[in-house]
Amino acid sequence: MAIRKILLLYILFSSNLVLCQTLENYDLWLGYSKTENPELSREYQELFQFIYIENGNEILATAQKELIAGLEKILGDKPEFTTVQNSKNTVIIAKRENLDRSLAEKLGTDFNALGKDGFILKRTLWDGKQLTILTANEDLGILYGVFRMLHLLQTEQSLSEIHLVDAPKIDLRMLNHWDNLDRTVERGYAGFSLWNWQKLPEYIDPRYIDYARANASIGINAVSLTNVNANALILTPMYLEKVEALANVFRPYGIKVFLTARFSAPMEIGGLETADPLNQEVQNWWNSKAGEIYDRIPDFGGFLVKANSEGQPGPQNYDRTHVDGANMLAKALKPHNGNVIWRAFVYSEHDADDRAKQAYSEFVPYDGTFMENVLVQVKNGPIDFQPREPFHPMFGAMPKTPLMMEFQITQEYLGFSTHLVYLPKLFEEVLDSDTYREGKGSTVAKVIDGSLHQKKLTGMAGVANIGNDLNWTGHPFAQANWYGFGRLAWDPYLSSEDIADEWLRATYSNDPKFVEPVRAMLLMSREAVVNYMNPLGLHHIFDTGHHYGPGPWVSELSRPEWNPTYYHRANDKGIGFDRTPSGSNATAQYAPEVAKIFNNPKAIPEEYLLWFHHLPWDYKLKNGQTLWNGIAVKYQEGVDQVEGMIATWESVKPYISEEQFREVRMLLDIQLKEAKWWRDACLLYFQTFSKKELPDGVEKPTKTLEYFKSLKFPFAPGIRPRWD
Amino acid sequence: MAIRKILLLYILFSSNLVLCQTLENYDLWLGYSKTENPELSREYQELFQFIYIENGNEILATAQKELIAGLEKILGDKPEFTTVQNSKNTVIIAKRENLDRSLAEKLGTDFNALGKDGFILKRTLWDGKQLTILTANEDLGILYGVFRMLHLLQTEQSLSEIHLVDAPKIDLRMLNHWDNLDRTVERGYAGFSLWNWQKLPEYIDPRYIDYARANASIGINAVSLTNVNANALILTPMYLEKVEALANVFRPYGIKVFLTARFSAPMEIGGLETADPLNQEVQNWWNSKAGEIYDRIPDFGGFLVKANSEGQPGPQNYDRTHVDGANMLAKALKPHNGNVIWRAFVYSEHDADDRAKQAYSEFVPYDGTFMENVLVQVKNGPIDFQPREPFHPMFGAMPKTPLMMEFQITQEYLGFSTHLVYLPKLFEEVLDSDTYREGKGSTVAKVIDGSLHQKKLTGMAGVANIGNDLNWTGHPFAQANWYGFGRLAWDPYLSSEDIADEWLRATYSNDPKFVEPVRAMLLMSREAVVNYMNPLGLHHIFDTGHHYGPGPWVSELSRPEWNPTYYHRANDKGIGFDRTPSGSNATAQYAPEVAKIFNNPKAIPEEYLLWFHHLPWDYKLKNGQTLWNGIAVKYQEGVDQVEGMIATWESVKPYISEEQFREVRMLLDIQLKEAKWWRDACLLYFQTFSKKELPDGVEKPTKTLEYFKSLKFPFAPGIRPRWD
Repeated sequence: MAIRKILLLYILFSSNLVLCQTLENYDLWLGYSKTENPELSREYQELFQFIYIENGNEILATAQKELIAGLEKILGDKPEFTTVQNSKNTVIIAKRENLDRSLAEKLGTDFNALGKDGFILKRTLWDGKQLTILTANEDLGILYGVFRMLHLLQTEQSLSEIHLVDAPKIDLRMLNHWDNLDRTVERGYAGFSLWNWQKLPEYIDPRYIDYARANASIGINAVSLTNVNANALILTPMYLEKVEALANVFRPYGIKVFLTARFSAPMEIGGLETADPLNQEVQNWWNSKAGEIYDRIPDFGGFLVKANSEGQPGPQNYDRTHVDGANMLAKALKPHNGNVIWRAFVYSEHDADDRAKQAYSEFVPYDGTFMENVLVQVKNGPIDFQPREPFHPMFGAMPKTPLMMEFQITQEYLGFSTHLVYLPKLFEEVLDSDTYREGKGSTVAKVIDGSLHQKKLTGMAGVANIGNDLNWTGHPFAQANWYGFGRLAWDPYLSSEDIADEWLRATYSNDPKFVEPVRAMLLMSREAVVNYMNPLGLHHIFDTGHHYGPGPWVSELSRPEWNPTYYHRANDKGIGFDRTPSGSNATAQYAPEVAKIFNNPKAIPEEYLLWFHHLPWDYKLKNGQTLWNGIAVKYQEGVDQVEGMIATWESVKPYISEEQFREVRMLLDIQLKEAKWWRDACLLYFQTFSKKELPDGVEKPTKTLEYFKSLKFPFAPGIRPRWD
Repeated sequence: MAIRKILLLYILFSSNLVLCQTLENYDLWLGYSKTENPELSREYQELFQFIYIENGNEILATAQKELIAGLEKILGDKPEFTTVQNSKNTVIIAKRENLDRSLAEKLGTDFNALGKDGFILKRTLWDGKQLTILTANEDLGILYGVFRMLHLLQTEQSLSEIHLVDAPKIDLRMLNHWDNLDRTVERGYAGFSLWNWQKLPEYIDPRYIDYARANASIGINAVSLTNVNANALILTPMYLEKVEALANVFRPYGIKVFLTARFSAPMEIGGLETADPLNQEVQNWWNSKAGEIYDRIPDFGGFLVKANSEGQPGPQNYDRTHVDGANMLAKALKPHNGNVIWRAFVYSEHDADDRAKQAYSEFVPYDGTFMENVLVQVKNGPIDFQPREPFHPMFGAMPKTPLMMEFQITQEYLGFSTHLVYLPKLFEEVLDSDTYREGKGSTVAKVIDGSLHQKKLTGMAGVANIGNDLNWTGHPFAQANWYGFGRLAWDPYLSSEDIADEWLRATYSNDPKFVEPVRAMLLMSREAVVNYMNPLGLHHIFDTGHHYGPGPWVSELSRPEWNPTYYHRANDKGIGFDRTPSGSNATAQYAPEVAKIFNNPKAIPEEYLLWFHHLPWDYKLKNGQTLWNGIAVKYQEGVDQVEGMIATWESVKPYISEEQFREVRMLLDIQLKEAKWWRDACLLYFQTFSKKELPDGVEKPTKTLEYFKSLKFPFAPGIRPRWD
């Protein structure tokens, strides 16, 4: 909610103050308010004098509803609508096929770039008069255009010379909810699942609609409702009836529903004795199940599958391959135009090889063997959503297979929902990484948008950070990560800085005195969390299971690759994971140009140093510090950066409401406390190997290593309770 | 939110419409709005011209804040305040000790009835001028008086001749939250726990404050934060720091915090080898733990304990008695003025006696042996929060022991949060029941308020129905049950009809066209649920574990008294539980006057018939129907009543917002579906014994008994997941 709105509330309608103060984060980046800038206000008033908007189906009806509600707030008055297109109109909103022919002709070439979901927003001369046109090839483009136009008004952009042609660069722009049927959310830190299965299908929580609005406003067009650690019951009629109700809510917002398919479902709910993908009965069961789903949900998206990973059943239980499994499901979905999204997040305790290598080793040989309605979904890095990872080596390495990006929006390894971390910065870093697979400039973004290898099907998924907290995401600033994910899924070449600017203006204020310092704080926040958790390429040194806080000492878990000691390999000599040819040789999975850099500790960007190299404690960093001192200084720098964030936030207090200020301020206190906890616990632990003093400028811990080791958090959020 | 407010919102500030429509249930019965009645509006404007309100501490500051915020909304303008009491004032709000002496003298005798928490609101002549005085003996009385005064304005009562002297009749007015540390809520149907342990103590969710406001506004002055199926970790420093933060939030609203004490805590978190209450080390541990808690929370309320009940540890594990256990804890709390609340909800699978008799048998002999800071908390009926039970025989039977009422506000056995059931009607029925323990008129209310046996300590607890749903209680009308519980805890002699009227006016509208039909619907709703679930004294025939839907056929659970068949005892001959002297003789636990009525099937009110009697299927009811037909007709009547509720709701559509209408309408659809499910499942099952046709007027089931038996709900809400 922009600050103007708070002030207005206070002045115009103080009787509602208490309620809306508590709830002011609820409306996300859609808290439209009256334009304050008098010049722009006049421009908008003139612009929206007589509006024509095409009607005719539920998506267009949604667009119209949003337009009316948004303009009423922005203009401060109900706009006037006309029922036909004529020269009186100041704005015409219609699909190409319903646009006055002479108008459509004026935009001729622009339409070529639109595809299914794009739109044109253009100021043009018609019949001797300036007017604004919003058009598209299909309905959804109109809805997206309406949302974008409202966003431009809300962030005080002039439309007087607008000529915007925009279309998404990625087909499937998708949220993955890891929501369980008991409404717990695996790795969820914003309360519990939005999906109230108990009250569905009859009761449609108004939040479902607000959720759909928010997604549509940033172009998200697909959601997987259920945890990848799946429960087969979701595929039974009792639950499909509920899924159908949600699909009906989401459809007018252009959002398709996917479900996670438990591979053993034919046994668990189908009464079969096997789930072997080459078994005819099993195939029949899935074919018939797909038919049953499509009878209810004609635009059902398909299945998202985690198979043979972390204990989930899969085709390998029957000595079959991932391809066998994925293609069996793909065949079942194909007649209905559905997709299989098959996750590449696999690693085995029976494989002694470096966990970072296993997904590539297992999947790359299958390139070209998946059916064409299969996407393989790959996490951004080769381990697991760490504060920083090098890009996953599979990107660019499977030219014949649609690879879908899996980002994690929820902050499993990033301080849960109490740490302010602006993730588009992380996403941008991954997307901008150069795989060199087709020479220099073969960025991950080009893999994902299909342009590197001319993919027919493209997608980007984000593991949702959304729950039933009043502010949706636990931390008000975590809304920026949902927003930023959506924007990058629309256009992976957007800059994280621009996205921060958009989000801040839409959510809080257009006042540069607020926007500029807070934007800088956002952009810095991701490096801060890397520094105080996992600097210089360290990774996966989180406490066990819940991943809350540091646990670099954990070494006794049954699977070796679940232990932090597996990853940091600290000993008397040094620290780091040797993934060069002298070690696990994971670098060989990258293009030679990349591998050459990664293999050389002097050439590699130091933020990846200990990911690929085991180095002595007195190894000299580029800045001349020893490795030990460099690590310690980075941890301290992270803490200092959080203190800087607090100073920034204190400085912008005048520009936001007391409630907005206080909420983030309290959370920053937690972040600072935990940044210090990370610094002290990790340095005390690594010091037992380095046997060196902390350098000057690094604060001395006030507690002992034994204290940090003794901390237990049996009820940390985000872990699935066991129900059976 | 009153409908006026919705209209105002629309007219004055439409830009906020979408947000507040979705969230309009959030502000409960505290959605103050500008007085519409012009005459009253003038009266209020004059009345509140110059206000003096005493200041000086955090409770008075809360009162002032509430007064300002409330009056601004009701008057539509900021009222004027004066800093001294003088003849210019039109309203004076001050404690007795700070009231101008001549004013205090005018109220002399009124003060006697006030006690600690009461207040006087009186219009009087002073210095030749009419003015309104709000006064009390203590700070909290002022806060309660402010809330009540605002309520009177909000519900459009004239204050021109007000003379209201009101004081709570019960000391401890308490909510029991059955909230687990993982934020699941046992028997919770409104989302998950409000207590976000992860973010405490630093992060104070604004909802904590809104929760405290709501409680204080109806006089609730104590909350137990944690499940009676307790986890000892709540007593460790990590959690006590979080509890302290909540206590600090609640203190300015006059609310004390209690915790549930797990009896085995000295072993689980104290490192002792026993929890024997007669062991000196155990006693020392509890003494020291109490000291530790009071160091943090000087006004800590005490411990609520479920011991030796449904698997919970307790003194009987060491061959000690409930008295030994309760008094050990009472000794630890006594130096700090804390209380032990010891639950009487006990029954044993090793006791072959009627479960309905066991609490009485076990506890009544202990009368007079508990320390004086112990209260024994007794559920309203002898089984477990059924839609209807006779009053618990312990009421009136322990003249020397403070008995605290335990009502269940959350609808464990009443359709969860999808059934509209107005519970004050149930509570009233219990409170009005006559125990005859001191002759006619010895009502349960008199037991609970201590007047029957001159108790020094009194209390009423309600198991909370509050969760993190946007509307707090899952069903908007379940807010009335929270409200009504609070009002009856303040004054157990209030009528449920008056409470319904208060709540509807404060929450929705003062328009009699809305209030009258909906009040009638509320008052009928409890009998409806009895009819379609458990008519004529049937009880505990719910499906296993989750208690969602009917399960009268369940007969194979390990403990006999967990099986519905234990309770209904249907066979070829008839149905019902013989608790007369020819059966379990539970009636002997009641006063002779009561037992006589209960023992006689012709004398007993038929709503208790099958609770106490096993009767043949062709037994003739008072209306001449056979028992079988009577049961069937009652089930049908319940369904018909829900249809009537839907008709009523449709008829008041013009008086509320579209969103308010739709939300309840959707829930009524579920209620109707489930009422039919109950009717059909139960009648089909009982028909296997009665072997009789359904009488005319009872709809024929469209599904089979086998279908109903096959329904499984593994993720029904309200069951504790297993974490260990």
